[in-house]
Amino acid sequence: MESSIGIVTAKKMHFSAPLLLQSGQSLADYDLMVETYGVLNAQRSNAVLICHALNASHHVAGHYLHEPQSLGWWDNMVGPGKPLDTQRFFIIGINNLGSCFGSTGPMSLDPATGRPYGARFPVVTVEDWVNAQARVADALGIERFAAVMGGSLGGMQALAWSITYPERVAHCLAIASTPKLSAQNIAFNEVARSAILSDPDFHGGDYYTHGVKPRIGLRLARMIGHITYLSDEDMAAKFGRARFSQKKNTYNFNFDIEFEVESYLRHQGGKFAEYFDANTYLLATRALDYFDPAQAYAGDLSAALANTRANYLVVSFTTDWRFPPARSQELVKALLEHKRAVTYAEINAPHGHDAFLLTDDRYHNLVRAYYARIAQECA
Amino acid sequence: MESSIGIVTAKKMHFSAPLLLQSGQSLADYDLMVETYGVLNAQRSNAVLICHALNASHHVAGHYLHEPQSLGWWDNMVGPGKPLDTQRFFIIGINNLGSCFGSTGPMSLDPATGRPYGARFPVVTVEDWVNAQARVADALGIERFAAVMGGSLGGMQALAWSITYPERVAHCLAIASTPKLSAQNIAFNEVARSAILSDPDFHGGDYYTHGVKPRIGLRLARMIGHITYLSDEDMAAKFGRARFSQKKNTYNFNFDIEFEVESYLRHQGGKFAEYFDANTYLLATRALDYFDPAQAYAGDLSAALANTRANYLVVSFTTDWRFPPARSQELVKALLEHKRAVTYAEINAPHGHDAFLLTDDRYHNLVRAYYARIAQECA
Repeated sequence: MESSIGIVTAKKMHFSAPLLLQSGQSLADYDLMVETYGVLNAQRSNAVLICHALNASHHVAGHYLHEPQSLGWWDNMVGPGKPLDTQRFFIIGINNLGSCFGSTGPMSLDPATGRPYGARFPVVTVEDWVNAQARVADALGIERFAAVMGGSLGGMQALAWSITYPERVAHCLAIASTPKLSAQNIAFNEVARSAILSDPDFHGGDYYTHGVKPRIGLRLARMIGHITYLSDEDMAAKFGRARFSQKKNTYNFNFDIEFEVESYLRHQGGKFAEYFDANTYLLATRALDYFDPAQAYAGDLSAALANTRANYLVVSFTTDWRFPPARSQELVKALLEHKRAVTYAEINAPHGHDAFLLTDDRYHNLVRAYYARIAQECA
Repeated sequence: MESSIGIVTAKKMHFSAPLLLQSGQSLADYDLMVETYGVLNAQRSNAVLICHALNASHHVAGHYLHEPQSLGWWDNMVGPGKPLDTQRFFIIGINNLGSCFGSTGPMSLDPATGRPYGARFPVVTVEDWVNAQARVADALGIERFAAVMGGSLGGMQALAWSITYPERVAHCLAIASTPKLSAQNIAFNEVARSAILSDPDFHGGDYYTHGVKPRIGLRLARMIGHITYLSDEDMAAKFGRARFSQKKNTYNFNFDIEFEVESYLRHQGGKFAEYFDANTYLLATRALDYFDPAQAYAGDLSAALANTRANYLVVSFTTDWRFPPARSQELVKALLEHKRAVTYAEINAPHGHDAFLLTDDRYHNLVRAYYARIAQECA
């Protein structure tokens, strides 16, 4: 019963009411790319919003016509008979503001100038994204989500939904996430941003009009990211000290690719630099850095969660050193102080932060069981 | 009794016999910068060699005349009354081949061309460094070292000494080190090297003749390095999410320095890019990658250590995630298989990999006690 949902189509939704951003700036109007799967029931009670992480999009599941390789980023989670079952739920994926997959972002034309926004695109926050997503829900006639779910930066959006719109979220599923970045997390983001900002082809963010893109910086940023997504154990198992060359018994004594892990990183970095936008990378890492709902409460996360109404599923993975289990536990503890219903699972998985995207029976069966319960509530 | 050794002077030693390198290349002749502290006894039995890590030098302790700020990198370890007591031992620091502090390296003039070696400087290994260091010992009339000691990449040299010259090392002290890099270690090195290699000012390694240096790449490399030297806990304690700006209650909504940790990394990176040489960074990270004494024995570290004769002190630090305690334990286990005398200590310290350079009573008292025993042996 675990087949992909098959061919899907994305649509662009236009919003013409200005959106006031946390920075004080506003967007006069904007587009958001949206995909939906399954059918909204008559009571409009079975809607689930999936929030994406740094480099993903609205394309959560299925594939596009004539593009069988274009599988959605969470296709193993969302589909007929899958943990989040499209036969039971109406599921929405939205490409966030500032991203580079069709929603309004730095690559879009600024109506004020007729040229791409570039560096003039405002710095957006997790809360800004949530406010923009709420307008999609309004347009689709969804008053309350059965669930808002996300992994990593997507989990932050799910958490922000439950704080900003407590009446509109029945369940919040925060996977491999954290209520705030650590200094080390920010440090990795800063190196990635520095690589982009210092690339001579960055041109202060306005590289579009120069006909170039800061590939070198974006490539380095992605290489750094990749190291933090994988666990030390996983890298050891996948690559170890395996050699790239055929001459296994002697080194090349140069700085070309010597080890498999170098080849992997260069390949991933190079691929990413072709399809992703550097300004979006800057924006998404800043949104990560800035997210900290406790900040307005003098660092008291419990106070920040005082008005939440949702039930929570919080999942962490043992070898995730980007957002380790302790960060999820911090969230769980603060929620329990308000007697919220919280299910917490720490999945023993070797794959580091990436585990949230991978197929793992214990993880998927947990999410499946959790959604089965939600399905009963909204039937 | 813990004063600095005071004013010290470095000297340049010239070696005119060709040095055959592991790569098959050779250096016709070369210079090495050397510093010594304390007095070699009549039996020449109290000599200790200190091997340096990635970015350090022969300048281990004391300071230079009229430069009170120029304290040696291990001044808290080496001096009168310090754990390695200059009143008892004759201590030698050597700047490794390929480094940028006066020993022959990529910045030196290639006698074959009259121009800086640049990219033509051969890729050197830990074993090459050890062979070059052995010639310094020969020149100073030291047949056997009371101890060879190093931290991190320096610990690899100490280990290589005990394997390559088993008769010439009484004690090997390997601190915060590892018998080989992991895939994750290599991955971080690869990103650092990529940053340098892809800097437009790198010019294939021959930037000297262009009057520039690849500052952007070197700065990024150092920023990445710094993250791996500090523990997550230590960064949390030092920086947390502390803000750089005076406006603590609102974000700047841009990509300038927002958090203290960003300021720290940019400062460290910028400073490093001014004083360090990019080609040396490439060489030192490659020497790290390549070190793997077990490789010639089909990965059997125990077999690689079969002919060692030294006694060992192995020290690791609990929060060191660059070379975690498990890597030291791997070495200890292989040594015990040959019934070598091994003292192993895992120091509970919050400072990550950098802990080996910092003052910590338990760590320093252990090293002090170990050297007190060596002093009795060589009296």
